[in-house]
Amino acid sequence: MQAREQILQAARRQFLASGYRRVTLRAIAADAGVDSALISYYFGSKRGLFAAVMQLIVGPPDVIRHSLSGDPAHLPERILGHVLATWEDPDRGARLVALYRRAGSDADANRLVRELIEGEVVKVLAEHLGGAHASARAGVAASQIAGLVFMRYILQAEPLASMGRRELVDRAAPALRVALSPQRLGRLPRS
Amino acid sequence: MQAREQILQAARRQFLASGYRRVTLRAIAADAGVDSALISYYFGSKRGLFAAVMQLIVGPPDVIRHSLSGDPAHLPERILGHVLATWEDPDRGARLVALYRRAGSDADANRLVRELIEGEVVKVLAEHLGGAHASARAGVAASQIAGLVFMRYILQAEPLASMGRRELVDRAAPALRVALSPQRLGRLPRS
Repeated sequence: MQAREQILQAARRQFLASGYRRVTLRAIAADAGVDSALISYYFGSKRGLFAAVMQLIVGPPDVIRHSLSGDPAHLPERILGHVLATWEDPDRGARLVALYRRAGSDADANRLVRELIEGEVVKVLAEHLGGAHASARAGVAASQIAGLVFMRYILQAEPLASMGRRELVDRAAPALRVALSPQRLGRLPRS
Repeated sequence: MQAREQILQAARRQFLASGYRRVTLRAIAADAGVDSALISYYFGSKRGLFAAVMQLIVGPPDVIRHSLSGDPAHLPERILGHVLATWEDPDRGARLVALYRRAGSDADANRLVRELIEGEVVKVLAEHLGGAHASARAGVAASQIAGLVFMRYILQAEPLASMGRRELVDRAAPALRVALSPQRLGRLPRS
């Protein structure tokens, strides 16, 4: 096995066993039987290595980044269109479904998905959005995406499961737009 | 064991094994060793029996019904407040988390949760909402609730996991309000 491949396999084991934050490059290097300088040489940083491992498992974690450029007015449609296309890709979709299912029952997969969503979706989206409560807005937006994925691909509950992709984008986009927008928390009086 | 209890245990087995639609009262009666007239006597109908079984597993499936009465302007806040309170109830919340986790990995639990969401959430909510595309609106609304539950209780991802309950209700309600409202699918031109 090439050193790069040995590092990837060791990183996969270590990230799954200990989670992103607790793993050290030193531990991965020891597991792979290489010098840790070689990790920096191949992957630049721990985040670069993590991205490469996630790519190995579910493909590039670029769902959000990919959707950010373009007219801000259409950001919700771009995000939803890209998410649905990714989950409906025959190969990648199946791996994502498997990971989502495992996240429910397996503590290691749960932590990995949590770190992926916190670091690659909520954080990236919040930085892009900016403004007041950007992280909270990004979190609510991410939860909408997670919920659509759960209903359509994991639970396969109607009417979302067999709705056309474009109709679903159109129906979910207005609420996602509200979640992404800065808004005063003008609470209505309690009834 | 009392006949009522025997029926409930048999129904739990049958619903889990075959799903709501395929199970017959006759099969449950045979499994319980009672006459099927006794099921009608105790539970009224198949739906009544199903509700009693779900109550046995996760408590009353009344999250949506419970929230419908009251000022329509505050419906999103009532739904979210009631859902979060239910999932944060020490006993019921733990059973719901267990069922949600199982729905990811176990086909029987998956079907049961799907039927519960389709029949007790989407359908009930759609009938209450009425108007154009009520089922689609209810489906998108239900997906938002499922996504919040997933992010906060299953994945425990920040910033939603440790956000105060009332703040989360306030942050998620505006988008849920949009999802529940009739809206023209005035698609923006594609960028």
